[in-house]
Amino acid sequence: MRTVAEYAKIVNGRLENLLPKLPEDSFAEGGMPELLCRSMNYSLLAGGKRLRPAMFLAALEMLGGDLDAWLDYACAVEMIHSYSLIHDDLPGMDDDTMRRGRPTNHVVFGVGQAILAGDGLLNGAFELMLDCALRRPGKAERALRAMREIATGAGVSGMIAGQVMDLRCERQGEADDAALSFIQRDKTACMFRYPLRAAATLAGAGTKEIDALGAYGEAFGRAFQAVDDLLDVLGDSAAMGKTLGKDAEQGKLTMVSRYGVDGAREQVRALCERALAALEGFGSEADFFRELMRSTAERTR
Amino acid sequence: MRTVAEYAKIVNGRLENLLPKLPEDSFAEGGMPELLCRSMNYSLLAGGKRLRPAMFLAALEMLGGDLDAWLDYACAVEMIHSYSLIHDDLPGMDDDTMRRGRPTNHVVFGVGQAILAGDGLLNGAFELMLDCALRRPGKAERALRAMREIATGAGVSGMIAGQVMDLRCERQGEADDAALSFIQRDKTACMFRYPLRAAATLAGAGTKEIDALGAYGEAFGRAFQAVDDLLDVLGDSAAMGKTLGKDAEQGKLTMVSRYGVDGAREQVRALCERALAALEGFGSEADFFRELMRSTAERTR
Repeated sequence: MRTVAEYAKIVNGRLENLLPKLPEDSFAEGGMPELLCRSMNYSLLAGGKRLRPAMFLAALEMLGGDLDAWLDYACAVEMIHSYSLIHDDLPGMDDDTMRRGRPTNHVVFGVGQAILAGDGLLNGAFELMLDCALRRPGKAERALRAMREIATGAGVSGMIAGQVMDLRCERQGEADDAALSFIQRDKTACMFRYPLRAAATLAGAGTKEIDALGAYGEAFGRAFQAVDDLLDVLGDSAAMGKTLGKDAEQGKLTMVSRYGVDGAREQVRALCERALAALEGFGSEADFFRELMRSTAERTR
Repeated sequence: MRTVAEYAKIVNGRLENLLPKLPEDSFAEGGMPELLCRSMNYSLLAGGKRLRPAMFLAALEMLGGDLDAWLDYACAVEMIHSYSLIHDDLPGMDDDTMRRGRPTNHVVFGVGQAILAGDGLLNGAFELMLDCALRRPGKAERALRAMREIATGAGVSGMIAGQVMDLRCERQGEADDAALSFIQRDKTACMFRYPLRAAATLAGAGTKEIDALGAYGEAFGRAFQAVDDLLDVLGDSAAMGKTLGKDAEQGKLTMVSRYGVDGAREQVRALCERALAALEGFGSEADFFRELMRSTAERTR
């Protein structure tokens, strides 16, 4: 089993060569405008730990799947994550001007182009997965099922649902446990849970393993969000590429604003246990995921 | 062969029941927020001729495909069209406040929610196609290839590329024949060409038929855009649901602004011929498409 950094390197190697290299004033018929390419790459190649695709590849490898064959599914997961950040940063959404230490996409390219760069990354993620699937016609059904898992995580009952609730609660100043749990799960945990289910599906795993990895992904994702909320007030935010106290300052609904630092820590602890319990059916081959959960939880101690 | 209106009725029957009916304050775990559902339906069910899905279904039926089996692909095409209009109307893009005689999505729901409604329709289109494909595991590869066609038409070398060029030309006041041709093809014609290719693919047609229908779709789509540009200045814009002279007033780059009314009319005539020529390999079974091309061209006489 490799480390997150090793998987991230594989992902980066592919992401960097995903979009064509075009001359600045390219206007080729049938091609991608250079401006679209550049604005998509600006956010897609802005760094980041590549945690979601790394976990995807680790799950795939753990269950005996072919890493090279399905690498583009991992890249698609990162493209979807990247699009969600571009749209989330827009005026009318969070209206953020900085992300990972650089100006946000719309600050550099303008609001209209940033909307289109996000649309391009979302649509492009499906284009990428479809091409990947079509290269393996013998596994077409498996490829479809895995794509459905990823679409579910990103979709109208997944990440987008979480964004809608987040926006609504912020606008209306609403805050209750159900709303916060909904947002934590849909906005954040879905993009861990469903890509892991997709990876297990591609590896040919059975329902039990798919469900177990999905359950781990949900608990991990929820914990990841609580850790993110904690680090926003406790420091170490530089590691998350964010300005310290930004969420708190914006009055966002977070685990910490609702439950306090101690409450959020207790949540992380409980979610960590839940994530590890989900892996009980696996042996030492799942140590990558156990270790990742523990090290993530420990960042807030 | 049915009429456009008859196909549109079939499409509307499905679209109206696509999203769940939710109580106003629904907060169900794992479900779609009622607000997301409502904002998506606001634009998706705002009327329109359903031309793209109607042509999709006509092509499918003409080539012996199963209309009921693949109806959801037609609906997905309309969802993608609908998302593109929502995002196109946003501030930072065209900044339109009216569409089809009603306030645009962001005027009613706010900019943030409108971005998410568009994202939801795009992602939802793939969710819908994937579910449709998974109901026919024996045709998984065909379903994948058809989905790839639709993704191409909507994608980073298709409709989104056209939007990027349109935005760039408007911002920079650029206007040359190559740019205008690029926009006409990518922004408009791609969402006729590739869905028709997808329908032919699903029907099990061969490369020759797929290419022929695609060529028809491109010529038809280009003509459709030129007709739209002409009607903007000639009247009858109510039928297109637009304010007369709006594009001209906004100084948009159109067939008419570039070539004048006579030049644009000449374009429509030539494109009509090109579209009909593309159908030469078909017999009377393609009369739906011939008639549609002729009646569309005649609207500007």
